Amino acid sequence: MEKTIERLALYRRLLKNQSGKGNTHIFSHQLAGISGYSAAIVRRDLMNIGYYGTPRHGYEIKALIDCLNVFFNKPEVKSLILVGAGNLGRALIAYFIKDKTEYNLIAAFDSDPLKVNLKYNGCPCYSLEKIPELIAASQASVGIITVPAENAQSVADLLVENKIKGILNFAPVSLTVPESVYVENVDLALMLEKVLYFSVHHREGEKKNGMT
Amino acid sequence: MEKTIERLALYRRLLKNQSGKGNTHIFSHQLAGISGYSAAIVRRDLMNIGYYGTPRHGYEIKALIDCLNVFFNKPEVKSLILVGAGNLGRALIAYFIKDKTEYNLIAAFDSDPLKVNLKYNGCPCYSLEKIPELIAASQASVGIITVPAENAQSVADLLVENKIKGILNFAPVSLTVPESVYVENVDLALMLEKVLYFSVHHREGEKKNGMT
Repeated sequence: MEKTIERLALYRRLLKNQSGKGNTHIFSHQLAGISGYSAAIVRRDLMNIGYYGTPRHGYEIKALIDCLNVFFNKPEVKSLILVGAGNLGRALIAYFIKDKTEYNLIAAFDSDPLKVNLKYNGCPCYSLEKIPELIAASQASVGIITVPAENAQSVADLLVENKIKGILNFAPVSLTVPESVYVENVDLALMLEKVLYFSVHHREGEKKNGMT
Repeated sequence: MEKTIERLALYRRLLKNQSGKGNTHIFSHQLAGISGYSAAIVRRDLMNIGYYGTPRHGYEIKALIDCLNVFFNKPEVKSLILVGAGNLGRALIAYFIKDKTEYNLIAAFDSDPLKVNLKYNGCPCYSLEKIPELIAASQASVGIITVPAENAQSVADLLVENKIKGILNFAPVSLTVPESVYVENVDLALMLEKVLYFSVHHREGEKKNGMT
């Protein structure tokens, strides 16, 4: 399920690019080529959301984007907040604030008094005490956590208490949350270690042992 | 294989934390608890690298860390570079430069003349033309790509030409590289879309259809 959502979000972005280039139709094998998945997977994913192409013309790009938008619950814009306006947090604010049509980053929060009341790329930064009030006012459903590892669980608890239903967690720590809350972990240091490892052991490693 | 490496890197970090707290031994079920994996997986992973605990005392933390260090080819410090000193790039410099013992971020590169010759958190920024020279001098094997999507493939080509063997790619685009080069993609916008989706559809979705 998670992987499907990830692929559907990717297809939507790629289709928007294609549409921007003036293309009106695309075949599953073409979408497969630019997405890096097989044509069979592409067809199955799109059948799952109820969209079928024709063998002659493939998929109609605009209609397919509309269909994906409905699937992802657009045009309703979702609100989100970010906790931890350190280096990574501020970079993510800059990164996520660009794409205003898809979601709305309404506020950042930090425990550092020097950061409170500042704006980063137009996004206001508040103290942590303001979290309940601002989540209630904005009906934000998603929180991005970019605080240090030792503070991440208490921030997650605070978000969950205030009805946040999805967390994108950059703190290198496993969060304990209720089953109804979805957490996606992005552990940048681990990802880098993996690349460092495979930059030396690539291929050899796969032959030498049967680890999966 | 990839997942195993990811878990082993995670165990190593968790074990270092435990060691820092003064603990000398740990049981597989405890390491399982803090890592979020099952005790069976933990035991299998550690057996794979040739380390066995005892039923009585579990694993000896220090020896296990040494064993993981050998596995990850330490103490040799690996060099890496970063291309694209925008918001995300600069945040990653700040993030990755802290942990100097594990790897060495030797330089950043950017096509913007205003950024060239600056230092970010002590990391010098050069023009892209300097890439061949600095990779050769430092024997960097890994490159982090944080350029816009439209420039990512040409940067990847340049890195591969200059013998980079691993790429951590933050550009929202699929890179085409030779088989011998390992690429890990971190697509932040896709991850956020996934969380936004599951913040609304969590659980329900899993019951309603059989997508995998």
